[in-house]
Amino acid sequence: MTPPAADGASDPALAAALASAQARVESALETLLVMPEGPEARLFEAMRYATLGGGKRLRAFLVMESASLFGVSETCAARVAAAVEMLHAYSLVHDDLPAMDDDDLRRGRPSTHRAFDEATAILAGDALQTRAFEILADPDTHSDPQARADLVLALAHAAGARGMVGGQMIDMAAEGKDLTEPEVVRLQALKTGRLIQFSTEAGAILGRAPHAQRLALAWYGRDVGAAFQIADDLLDALGTTEETGKTAGKDEAAGKATLVAILGPERARAQALLLAEQGATHLDIFGERAANLRALARFVVARRS
Amino acid sequence: MTPPAADGASDPALAAALASAQARVESALETLLVMPEGPEARLFEAMRYATLGGGKRLRAFLVMESASLFGVSETCAARVAAAVEMLHAYSLVHDDLPAMDDDDLRRGRPSTHRAFDEATAILAGDALQTRAFEILADPDTHSDPQARADLVLALAHAAGARGMVGGQMIDMAAEGKDLTEPEVVRLQALKTGRLIQFSTEAGAILGRAPHAQRLALAWYGRDVGAAFQIADDLLDALGTTEETGKTAGKDEAAGKATLVAILGPERARAQALLLAEQGATHLDIFGERAANLRALARFVVARRS
Repeated sequence: MTPPAADGASDPALAAALASAQARVESALETLLVMPEGPEARLFEAMRYATLGGGKRLRAFLVMESASLFGVSETCAARVAAAVEMLHAYSLVHDDLPAMDDDDLRRGRPSTHRAFDEATAILAGDALQTRAFEILADPDTHSDPQARADLVLALAHAAGARGMVGGQMIDMAAEGKDLTEPEVVRLQALKTGRLIQFSTEAGAILGRAPHAQRLALAWYGRDVGAAFQIADDLLDALGTTEETGKTAGKDEAAGKATLVAILGPERARAQALLLAEQGATHLDIFGERAANLRALARFVVARRS
Repeated sequence: MTPPAADGASDPALAAALASAQARVESALETLLVMPEGPEARLFEAMRYATLGGGKRLRAFLVMESASLFGVSETCAARVAAAVEMLHAYSLVHDDLPAMDDDDLRRGRPSTHRAFDEATAILAGDALQTRAFEILADPDTHSDPQARADLVLALAHAAGARGMVGGQMIDMAAEGKDLTEPEVVRLQALKTGRLIQFSTEAGAILGRAPHAQRLALAWYGRDVGAAFQIADDLLDALGTTEETGKTAGKDEAAGKATLVAILGPERARAQALLLAEQGATHLDIFGERAANLRALARFVVARRS
């Protein structure tokens, strides 16, 4: 393979697709989080603060790109992308709470409980999760109720106690303990991998894709999610707060188990590259149509922020 | 009307139906919250602690009874009842957190963050919400995906920022402020009314009931929910910690806005009775089949705990 670009998405088609997904999902989030009048406005303010703050929108991109493989309307795909970003934002808001990771900074801005208050942050996270499921079950997202129910079921599998929240629980329990490599791999597959995997499967569900194609996208998502997490941990270990917009070095300070800590940066980076390559090969059945998804797999391990 | 029984459900058919719904939902919750092996077991322990702790199971009863009007299988209704109780339990776990109501006692036992820890309580609440939607979207709950998607959509409407969580936000913002009667009515309709209303509508959704019948159940649920909340506030104001299993007098201590504080206990009780009667009349179209739901409307304002 050619060496990955040192920073940014050097592949112009990928850069355009990333920018397009970002714009699409930002606009969908704006529409789907309209502020009401009344004393609950502050809740919506916090939900919007946590969600509209930009970010890479990796999950939104994966939904939009995988949906495009099946000719799904961009409007429908953007609603699902927004739902995934809301689910992701809720998990970050709760992870940042004082009782959890106690983090003051997120995407270079005060985290939600610092910008508002703890109670508002808890409730905003709760309501963002609810809103994600509400959007998936809404007839505007897909005319076929089977697709809507499938989306809800798949997101709940990915996000619940046997997925993302379970991973977060293991992560909390593991602080200061020495985990083995398989334990860390499982933790990260649950904590971040499952939601990334859902993002790629969502396109197949929206497109009523044959089982084999849904599976191929799921495997791609699993590998890219794992590669992404290692790259994230490398950035935490080697990056600066200024570069990443997050508090740098906090994993080590918190005694968090990462593959970077177990394998060292060199072997961890090699592992991420291998996973990205492996992920890309699952897309062979889609041919050239999956070029952006293939480029993305390489980009996630090369990114600088 | 005859004066309501002073304590317990004196109507034998209602007492039997309440006990049956309690047993049914407890068993469904047991099945639906099976503990896994591994380091995430503690999360499931907390989810089970928060959910299996007994309680009146008012919402479960409403799901089971409204579903029985349409001949829905008890197994399917019990799954939806369990989902509603999980959603309710999640809201209690988060409401009790130090940053929210800071309550040490729930149903006569330490609240979840006291029995476990704050981080575990936040995550257990999060995962209970996810699990509720997962169950509703599961083909085991209903063979028709339209019914499943409708259940998810209706629960999300009831539970989200424009429903329960919005009500909780208004409640937090109102502490120490003087709300007007209409403001308190709206707050309580959102905070507790909407989920009770969903419980009655869920039976109609499961039974694919005609619109008029779903609406009748929704109106019944709205009125019974409002009556229930006033009765709850009366218990808080006049009951003891021993009787209610909750910290008594905490509404007044926290400067919480209740109709009891605005109207005084006598007028508040009269209002609750009126709402219960009004709720029962919505059930006329169901004739004798709705006898238990009618009796329940009277019971919620007469109960002592």
